[in-house]
Amino acid sequence: MLEALTTLSPNQYSLVYNSLSFGIATFAAATIFFWFGRSQVSIEYKTVLTITGLVTFIALYHYFRMFQSFEAAVTLTNGVVEATGKEFNSSYRYVDWLLTVPLLLIELILVMRLTQSETVSRSTSLGIAAALMIALGYLGEASGSINSTRLIWGALSTIPFLYIVYTLFVGLGDAIKLQPDNVQGLVMRARNLTVASWFFYPIVYFAPFVLSGAGSSGAFVMIQVGYTTADLVAKAGFGLLIYMIAVRKSAASVR
Amino acid sequence: MLEALTTLSPNQYSLVYNSLSFGIATFAAATIFFWFGRSQVSIEYKTVLTITGLVTFIALYHYFRMFQSFEAAVTLTNGVVEATGKEFNSSYRYVDWLLTVPLLLIELILVMRLTQSETVSRSTSLGIAAALMIALGYLGEASGSINSTRLIWGALSTIPFLYIVYTLFVGLGDAIKLQPDNVQGLVMRARNLTVASWFFYPIVYFAPFVLSGAGSSGAFVMIQVGYTTADLVAKAGFGLLIYMIAVRKSAASVR
Repeated sequence: MLEALTTLSPNQYSLVYNSLSFGIATFAAATIFFWFGRSQVSIEYKTVLTITGLVTFIALYHYFRMFQSFEAAVTLTNGVVEATGKEFNSSYRYVDWLLTVPLLLIELILVMRLTQSETVSRSTSLGIAAALMIALGYLGEASGSINSTRLIWGALSTIPFLYIVYTLFVGLGDAIKLQPDNVQGLVMRARNLTVASWFFYPIVYFAPFVLSGAGSSGAFVMIQVGYTTADLVAKAGFGLLIYMIAVRKSAASVR
Repeated sequence: MLEALTTLSPNQYSLVYNSLSFGIATFAAATIFFWFGRSQVSIEYKTVLTITGLVTFIALYHYFRMFQSFEAAVTLTNGVVEATGKEFNSSYRYVDWLLTVPLLLIELILVMRLTQSETVSRSTSLGIAAALMIALGYLGEASGSINSTRLIWGALSTIPFLYIVYTLFVGLGDAIKLQPDNVQGLVMRARNLTVASWFFYPIVYFAPFVLSGAGSSGAFVMIQVGYTTADLVAKAGFGLLIYMIAVRKSAASVR
């Protein structure tokens, strides 16, 4: 990690710096938008919007921490990038996902309003699979530049990942068909966006193998900007679809 | 950029410093005003005021960051301006516009309450054009003092800019005629203010060519104070018109 930071060019530095700041601004705005939206939906959808805003709020906290950590670890003075020697804590991303990914899955389940027992069983199995997926991925990421270790943990993490994708596609397929007409398309889009945006993460995770090795500055920038983009789509973009579903379903019910 | 900072006079330093602080104060006040206004409009206009406040909130965040960055990059001690060598991150403006300009266009579309499909199609095409305009302008601004590069990217950025202006004038012209009588004038004024305030940006962007070159301290001050003025008009001033339209339309509908 340190090695990658010392070889950052000024442009690479600015790109990581500005994408982290962009994350802060977007997640703050999204959180406020979702929480204000609570007053515009009927009572059974208020919890969904609370959680949608919590996901972006937790992300806001971690992006703020990462921004500070990056500022402390690397400086740009007189056009020269220098690593201060302080650790850039990349684990914030995994701590964030450990909290937000189960919540994202619960958002999707809640907005569909399945039966109470199905809501609980699906939330539990998907939540556990998500936590497992992230914990295994973390062990690989924490290994830093050792490529074979990263590969093995990454491959293990792919097992719960595929289970979740399968459940979202096949398991929730029937439930989607039971949604009201005016939101069926939106729910399907939310499900597809979840799957599509999630494929970003393994791509970013394994990209350093194809690129110039996990320790290089190019790989570092790719990982930071790639994960930030994926987070923005999976949390704020996905949340916007959940918000639209909640608003439409509320309008359809008696107010 | 650094070169421009080292030659700032104490007066120039104060002008930039105070205009950034003025931006912070105005955007904070505007945000609170718009969000309080949510309780005074009917339910279909609450989202418009949420977004109007989000635009000034996002601007508030970036002006705060710019103020901090300016303070870290330049000091005024014993009447002498000195550059510390730390980078003044001028990219904050572009990161801000990337988020706020599409939202500003969505504000105008939402307050008009077009059909659902027209709202989505217009928001999408204008949003993409706005993002493209800003990204191209950023590439020119990031090139720093190299004048021909700034000129080429600026010229390219003008293409989506003109598309947006054309759409606002011609495309939305018919929709404005369908607005209720008591707000038609206001909606037209909001549309005109958008176009007028937006012409500030290319003027500020290209002004350094007429003045003393993009690297000089005079050009630096012109850019900072010019963009700040344009932001205040386009975000807080425009937002005030949107607020008035939302309040009048709410009064006309049954409460």
